[in-house]
Amino acid sequence: MSGRHTVGEVVDATDAAAEVGAAVHAAAAAGVERSTRAERARWLRSIAEAMDLHRDELVAIGRDETHLSELRLVGEVVRTSTQLRFFADVIEEGSHLEATLDSPDGSLVPPRPDLRRMLRPIGPVAVFAASNFPFAFSVLGNDTASALAAGCPVVVKAHPGHPHLSRRVAEVGRAALVDVGGPADAVVLVEGFEAGVALVGHPLIAAVGFTGSTRGGRALFDLAAARPAPIPFYGELGSLNPVVVTEAAATADLDGIAGGLAGSFTRDGGQYCTKPGLVFVPAGAGFEDALCDALGTIGAQRLLTDGIGSAFHEGADRLTGLDGAELVWRGAADGAEAPAMVVATDATSLAADADAWLQECFGPLTVLVRYDGRAELDAAIAALEGSLTASIHHAPGEDVAALAAALGRTAGRLVFNGWPTGVAIGWAQHHGGGWPATTASVHTSVGATAIRRFLTPVAYQDAPAEVLPPELRDGNPLGIPRRVDGVLVPPHRS
Amino acid sequence: MSGRHTVGEVVDATDAAAEVGAAVHAAAAAGVERSTRAERARWLRSIAEAMDLHRDELVAIGRDETHLSELRLVGEVVRTSTQLRFFADVIEEGSHLEATLDSPDGSLVPPRPDLRRMLRPIGPVAVFAASNFPFAFSVLGNDTASALAAGCPVVVKAHPGHPHLSRRVAEVGRAALVDVGGPADAVVLVEGFEAGVALVGHPLIAAVGFTGSTRGGRALFDLAAARPAPIPFYGELGSLNPVVVTEAAATADLDGIAGGLAGSFTRDGGQYCTKPGLVFVPAGAGFEDALCDALGTIGAQRLLTDGIGSAFHEGADRLTGLDGAELVWRGAADGAEAPAMVVATDATSLAADADAWLQECFGPLTVLVRYDGRAELDAAIAALEGSLTASIHHAPGEDVAALAAALGRTAGRLVFNGWPTGVAIGWAQHHGGGWPATTASVHTSVGATAIRRFLTPVAYQDAPAEVLPPELRDGNPLGIPRRVDGVLVPPHRS
Repeated sequence: MSGRHTVGEVVDATDAAAEVGAAVHAAAAAGVERSTRAERARWLRSIAEAMDLHRDELVAIGRDETHLSELRLVGEVVRTSTQLRFFADVIEEGSHLEATLDSPDGSLVPPRPDLRRMLRPIGPVAVFAASNFPFAFSVLGNDTASALAAGCPVVVKAHPGHPHLSRRVAEVGRAALVDVGGPADAVVLVEGFEAGVALVGHPLIAAVGFTGSTRGGRALFDLAAARPAPIPFYGELGSLNPVVVTEAAATADLDGIAGGLAGSFTRDGGQYCTKPGLVFVPAGAGFEDALCDALGTIGAQRLLTDGIGSAFHEGADRLTGLDGAELVWRGAADGAEAPAMVVATDATSLAADADAWLQECFGPLTVLVRYDGRAELDAAIAALEGSLTASIHHAPGEDVAALAAALGRTAGRLVFNGWPTGVAIGWAQHHGGGWPATTASVHTSVGATAIRRFLTPVAYQDAPAEVLPPELRDGNPLGIPRRVDGVLVPPHRS
Repeated sequence: MSGRHTVGEVVDATDAAAEVGAAVHAAAAAGVERSTRAERARWLRSIAEAMDLHRDELVAIGRDETHLSELRLVGEVVRTSTQLRFFADVIEEGSHLEATLDSPDGSLVPPRPDLRRMLRPIGPVAVFAASNFPFAFSVLGNDTASALAAGCPVVVKAHPGHPHLSRRVAEVGRAALVDVGGPADAVVLVEGFEAGVALVGHPLIAAVGFTGSTRGGRALFDLAAARPAPIPFYGELGSLNPVVVTEAAATADLDGIAGGLAGSFTRDGGQYCTKPGLVFVPAGAGFEDALCDALGTIGAQRLLTDGIGSAFHEGADRLTGLDGAELVWRGAADGAEAPAMVVATDATSLAADADAWLQECFGPLTVLVRYDGRAELDAAIAALEGSLTASIHHAPGEDVAALAAALGRTAGRLVFNGWPTGVAIGWAQHHGGGWPATTASVHTSVGATAIRRFLTPVAYQDAPAEVLPPELRDGNPLGIPRRVDGVLVPPHRS
């Protein structure tokens, strides 16, 4: 589906609907839901290998379109292929199917027949690619990889910030599928705003994965909910990622913490959903000075798109104009770059206008909030909305259980003496949080459970053996973990 | 919160909002989220015991308000206490927490810190009780039991069809909580239409469980989605529960299948979400006559409320008025009762006006659809929307894999040579299906995973031991199943 229009061409809504219809039908007809787990693991590994093989070519296109550094983009390709291989590992292990068998028992009320339950693919998935991860959360990123792993074909709506890269990545991925006998149309690309709207409304689309802005995500979430048959919308939107520096931590390691923050909030132009955007520091500890010292050596960065650059400057102007705001740092930057910026205020000013202060500013800016004692800190934390992460810098042995519990009320990941950027890949990772960090409480595009978003249960009652998927048959022929009569049975290979 | 108004009293919206506000704050302040799994298992078993102890008293109230039979209501109390004990077993086992630990590994890209993930309670849950299960899907039914098991306090909106029973059940449940040292306000009751609307919109409510009509459920779903911070809405709405009788099955056991259907669709006045409402039978097999023979011995039933009675008659009139409709059976009934009814048509008539034919008629009515060959059957199945169940009656050894796959596209449970009514309780049960059967693809108010609807993940990165829940600490002190570095480790008791 890619490449039919030139970059930046305006496509009208009727054309977009027709193009999306063709894309969705092609994906739905690819037969992905009938593939085996072993086949899909092969597909995912083939795509991963192709990403690695084409790394230099893809990074060059990405450099040109995103202004991200080569080091960053090379790392992101590695991350992307690692994710793809991780999801292959997860579906081979098989726990994600939740295979569960109950034996018949006529003595129960009501009597129990032979019941066997597992998860099946939900259907074609729409994926909205992100601006800020042109590989890892884009055409072949986490949403696409987890949907394919689940057994769902994917229609990706490319991000307009990197159209050439999106097309080339789609070509590489589709060719890699064909290389190992898979269907190219397991991944189909569409482009343009109108195409995205049509995609969410298409009757064959069964779920949506989205990474982007709160405004855009909310609009698409509303469309998904308003469909005649509503579908789940897994959106990762905005996040402030609050950080608390305790008094003891500031006493113990002021410069170390300031240096860590300087690196984290400016990393790659601060263009991370996990950027620490709100940092509670003890009043009078001298944190502002320490942070300015640390920022002295950090350069500026051109942001992903002109629109993101303008939005950054507007957001920064808005914050610096608030009552009680102080501009603590504004780094050097040429006209095309965004300067690193630090705005400071105190907890009472924040409390007086929380809605205005608690707005994400995407880019290399963080807000320091000076708190004077624990009561002020607790009140400020109670006002927070959902975030992907919350971090606590504490002294060794300091009791931060109550603080962690308060921050854990709204954040999906709690970080201790570390920084939220650099999201590790693994079974125990979670990338979610309360609204507006995500639209769905169980959302996670990162980590093994990302696959579950694109699965739905089916229970078989007294089914003949040949109707059952192999994973539910007597004797567990594929050796996956199952629950049998309530008891978890670990995996084995027969 | 219960008992402040008399039955049937109209409460205005302002009063309702204030009453709901008080109810939600009481529930939120009950401390349920800080309870241990062991405590909550004790609460659930205490409530179960109290239900059993008060069975006769409660059944008498229920008889009066619902017109359901004593046998049915006694069975439903047993079902309800069994469910409560089942959820206690599930949280004691501990797999539902999805405890997952990844060791640090600096060699990965990005480097992996110490990550530990599990699920935590999502917050106060709103439960909308059902008309047709005054115990099992009402005040202390599946939604409430699974929310309490998860660690969430519950505000129940009583069903207006059984107000006295709702209040008495709430009293019994709250006393049973206190009996074992639990908080009475873990379950709070509110009443009235306006209260329900206010409940879904209350900022502290974190999720909704609903069992009821498609129209009412959709309206509340839309409210939940339109909140400033949207929340998940787990609704179980309408379901046709298609049944296919194959030609070979009709040849092998016409009378047996007809007798089973007669019992299933008229059971307790056909007032089940799993009632078989659409039955595909081979044309010319004589199924209509066999069904009429079987219905001759089945009595009529007064429906739950006058409103449900009127809606049944309207729905029946609508169906019998459709092009190609034949009224095959209308049983004897006195003025207050609903007669058993069978409407028949053929697959071509159904295809000509599918939207009109594929409407659920709640009560003792089923629609027979005569099909002439497999192509007609397949086309009709392709037109179906989501259902909680789909059933296949087949001859021994007959290959029904393709039929099962087609029906499994939209149904959450596939039943073979059996009937969908009488939903067993167990780990492998699933009670869900595509829209409009349920609003959420992972929905299940029945079965172990019902608990997961009211949990949300949190990941701990490099957390000090004392911050971690015991389930995530080194050495697995509570002996629950965990995944450690990707490997599933079965439960043990240390």
